[in-house]
Amino acid sequence: MPLQLDFDKQNGLITAVVQDANTGRVLMVGFMNQAAFDKTIETGHVTFFSRSRQKLWTKGESSGHYLQLKSIATDCDADALLVQAEPIGPGVCHNGFESCFYRTLHGDEWIETEQPVYDPSSVYGARQ
Amino acid sequence: MPLQLDFDKQNGLITAVVQDANTGRVLMVGFMNQAAFDKTIETGHVTFFSRSRQKLWTKGESSGHYLQLKSIATDCDADALLVQAEPIGPGVCHNGFESCFYRTLHGDEWIETEQPVYDPSSVYGARQ
Repeated sequence: MPLQLDFDKQNGLITAVVQDANTGRVLMVGFMNQAAFDKTIETGHVTFFSRSRQKLWTKGESSGHYLQLKSIATDCDADALLVQAEPIGPGVCHNGFESCFYRTLHGDEWIETEQPVYDPSSVYGARQ
Repeated sequence: MPLQLDFDKQNGLITAVVQDANTGRVLMVGFMNQAAFDKTIETGHVTFFSRSRQKLWTKGESSGHYLQLKSIATDCDADALLVQAEPIGPGVCHNGFESCFYRTLHGDEWIETEQPVYDPSSVYGARQ
């Protein structure tokens, strides 16, 4: 029997780490359910399941900043995905940064260690 | 008030992605609770909370393959960590691979796309 992804450990969800296929930078972490995984494969646009909105969410559907799928790996337990993608647009983070991981621990404080690469209000408008 | 990690969304846990600080390869994904995070900082050895065993688990405690902490970033929602670490030993995966992400999707099958780098039975013994 071929390997099946394990969606059971997290109530139907699997962790999906997105890495920039060109630079290797980790851009974001999201969750996929089976439908999000299938849609990612079918469309080539990385699609998540939004826990807060409880629905599928194709990254870029409002911003235009799609993540073009390049390849997907899974781990030994088949309960996490590593998605290689090419980001369309300057940054994936809704706060205006290239990566959502823009804060680094220094001592006991999280410090913003880089500059925004676009103005979120010009992309997401009043929703910010 | 300084940024606090958000352990509430996943019942006291936060997703922790470990990336090789030298090569940029994503090695594994685990979970930390507050105690695992604190121990990681204090000891410099990346420590997780094992969901299956329900206890702290310092990677390398049985294999010697520790993950030496280099830096930690958090994401916009403060509900995920990106841990930069230097792996001690040939591979982090208990199945003998450099990275737990050794299977890649080809068509609709997950294919092992690399070779093991050590013999798990010589490291983990009968537990395999």
